Amino acid sequence: MSGFLSYRYREIEPYTAGEQPQDRQYIKLNTNESPFPPSPKAVEAVTKAAVEGLKLYSDPVSRKLRKAIAAFWGLDESEVVATNGSDEALALAFIAYCGGGEGIASPDISYGFYPVLCGLLGLDNEVIPLKKDFTIDVDAFCATKNHVVLANPNAPTGLALSLAQMERILVANPDRIVIVDEAYIDYGGQSCIPLIPKYNNLIVVQTFSKSRSLAGARIGFAAGQKALMEDFDKIRDSLNPYNINTLSERIGVAAVEDKNYLEACVAEIVKTRAYTANALQKLGFEVLPSIANFLFARHPKLTGKQYYLALKKEGVLVRHFDKDRIRDFARISIGSREEMEILLEKTEKILKGEIAL
Amino acid sequence: MSGFLSYRYREIEPYTAGEQPQDRQYIKLNTNESPFPPSPKAVEAVTKAAVEGLKLYSDPVSRKLRKAIAAFWGLDESEVVATNGSDEALALAFIAYCGGGEGIASPDISYGFYPVLCGLLGLDNEVIPLKKDFTIDVDAFCATKNHVVLANPNAPTGLALSLAQMERILVANPDRIVIVDEAYIDYGGQSCIPLIPKYNNLIVVQTFSKSRSLAGARIGFAAGQKALMEDFDKIRDSLNPYNINTLSERIGVAAVEDKNYLEACVAEIVKTRAYTANALQKLGFEVLPSIANFLFARHPKLTGKQYYLALKKEGVLVRHFDKDRIRDFARISIGSREEMEILLEKTEKILKGEIAL
Repeated sequence: MSGFLSYRYREIEPYTAGEQPQDRQYIKLNTNESPFPPSPKAVEAVTKAAVEGLKLYSDPVSRKLRKAIAAFWGLDESEVVATNGSDEALALAFIAYCGGGEGIASPDISYGFYPVLCGLLGLDNEVIPLKKDFTIDVDAFCATKNHVVLANPNAPTGLALSLAQMERILVANPDRIVIVDEAYIDYGGQSCIPLIPKYNNLIVVQTFSKSRSLAGARIGFAAGQKALMEDFDKIRDSLNPYNINTLSERIGVAAVEDKNYLEACVAEIVKTRAYTANALQKLGFEVLPSIANFLFARHPKLTGKQYYLALKKEGVLVRHFDKDRIRDFARISIGSREEMEILLEKTEKILKGEIAL
Repeated sequence: MSGFLSYRYREIEPYTAGEQPQDRQYIKLNTNESPFPPSPKAVEAVTKAAVEGLKLYSDPVSRKLRKAIAAFWGLDESEVVATNGSDEALALAFIAYCGGGEGIASPDISYGFYPVLCGLLGLDNEVIPLKKDFTIDVDAFCATKNHVVLANPNAPTGLALSLAQMERILVANPDRIVIVDEAYIDYGGQSCIPLIPKYNNLIVVQTFSKSRSLAGARIGFAAGQKALMEDFDKIRDSLNPYNINTLSERIGVAAVEDKNYLEACVAEIVKTRAYTANALQKLGFEVLPSIANFLFARHPKLTGKQYYLALKKEGVLVRHFDKDRIRDFARISIGSREEMEILLEKTEKILKGEIAL
């Protein structure tokens, strides 16, 4: 640390991303990426002429991408702002709306980026524990006096709230912003986007990193009523006026327009998820009923860390969180059927003692 | 504006980017882009496999790009952090170092993004007027009690400080950060990067948007001593952990490694700049001695706005700033020789009255 870092950041803890080891080739089931390439139409959108066109600035408002996202969701263009990944959307929402002295309420077990952002921005993070069954405590989120951020489905549990539950929270907090992070919504959840006309305190955040196979392109967006999005866009424009590069915008437009490809990828993940969950249960795992592109599972004979380390040694990466309440679990991204077969085979060997812990 | 925007942002003025009109094809000499495509090696770096690889997250620390930039400048990898455009680098530097109660000093006429950032972050912006000849008032920047941000060369004047002048400011402010924004350094200025080992309060910010013809790829970086960059990176990681997309990283590495192409592009711009400045002077313009990729010029018989509007009508875009002291000027980006010939031809016709004001 230099002597120049502002005093307010001396204690902050940056975000810990899933590991990306370079020592060997792994089957990567640790960062909830898609096993499929992006839509062929997205790949075709990157022409030589487009790359040469990088000499010009990107569109500061990424209008084509906003339009395409709005069309996909039946929104008006003024209700969408595209961002450099959904992390940027979360950061901008926290900055724009949560600086009035209130804090932000989030579950104790959720996306680790929320407390990091609160730390950076000096916001009080009210931590509301999940219930014993790892579901979100809706009553507690109705009772909070703070703004709310919820991942729906939640990570790393994969459990989702219904629209009716989300509406309870929205109605109970009319003077507070409710940010719903729908990174994993496409795999079986109900998006809150159709609620936007009804609630002026709702912001939905989504990403192209998961179901659209574009984690490396850094594309996300925020959606909400026009007045909210005007505020949001003003903050975006004041912090990074050209936030999305030209190629990602082109890729994003093509990807969001290729609905068939999205649906095919999602259907495959949902099928493989069911297959994997079933197989893990047969091996004695408790598997939470995830509707995301990952499973959260524990085995009575293994700690989460043992399982994670044994798999890593065998070339399979899953994610383990060394944190109270979920220490026994591993979060396993749903890859291709072949990748999950290998995971299951290794898991069986670990349980049989054929792979040492 | 919604009722939810934090009170502290109610008065902020977002950044006004150069216009990008879509009504017709213009000769764009208004946003200091390069007339040349990016390096052919950068174009080749975008393979189909690379685009398909977007299914995986980008490297959160963009290590390959940091290494390439460090190698180019003779720095250690730990002294460089790559960013999503240099605007992000500026924002992160302001956030990281300038939150201790001090403000930021900047010239009254400079890059319009500095006061925008100060507004967003609630930082006091000490405005130090340029001297009568439009040069930076070095003595005043030595006397400030605030942090310092300077564009060198300055925009829109194109005038630069020498390394000796920069050192005076660095020495005079040992407890304050001095951010040097070198967006236009490659066209004839002296970079402060070689001063990094000597000054622990120096941060140099650069962009790939100008001399490397990559405005649309959003690539910038900050450089400084290791301890400063550790702080900077911690803030980056807390605000947007995956700030650079995979394709831009690949493109950036190829571009920075192609030094010959950079030098050829810069040489061409420098030649065309001299040609254009000379021709404008012959037409009666006062032209500041710019060492950037633009000229700042005024004519006794035209207001800046008249000249800008007449050119726009004729399909040539330049930039006019409706601001005291520089209202008479137009900022003219250096395009290709052919583009500048058209500009000069139109200018001559305007002065002869053959094009109506």
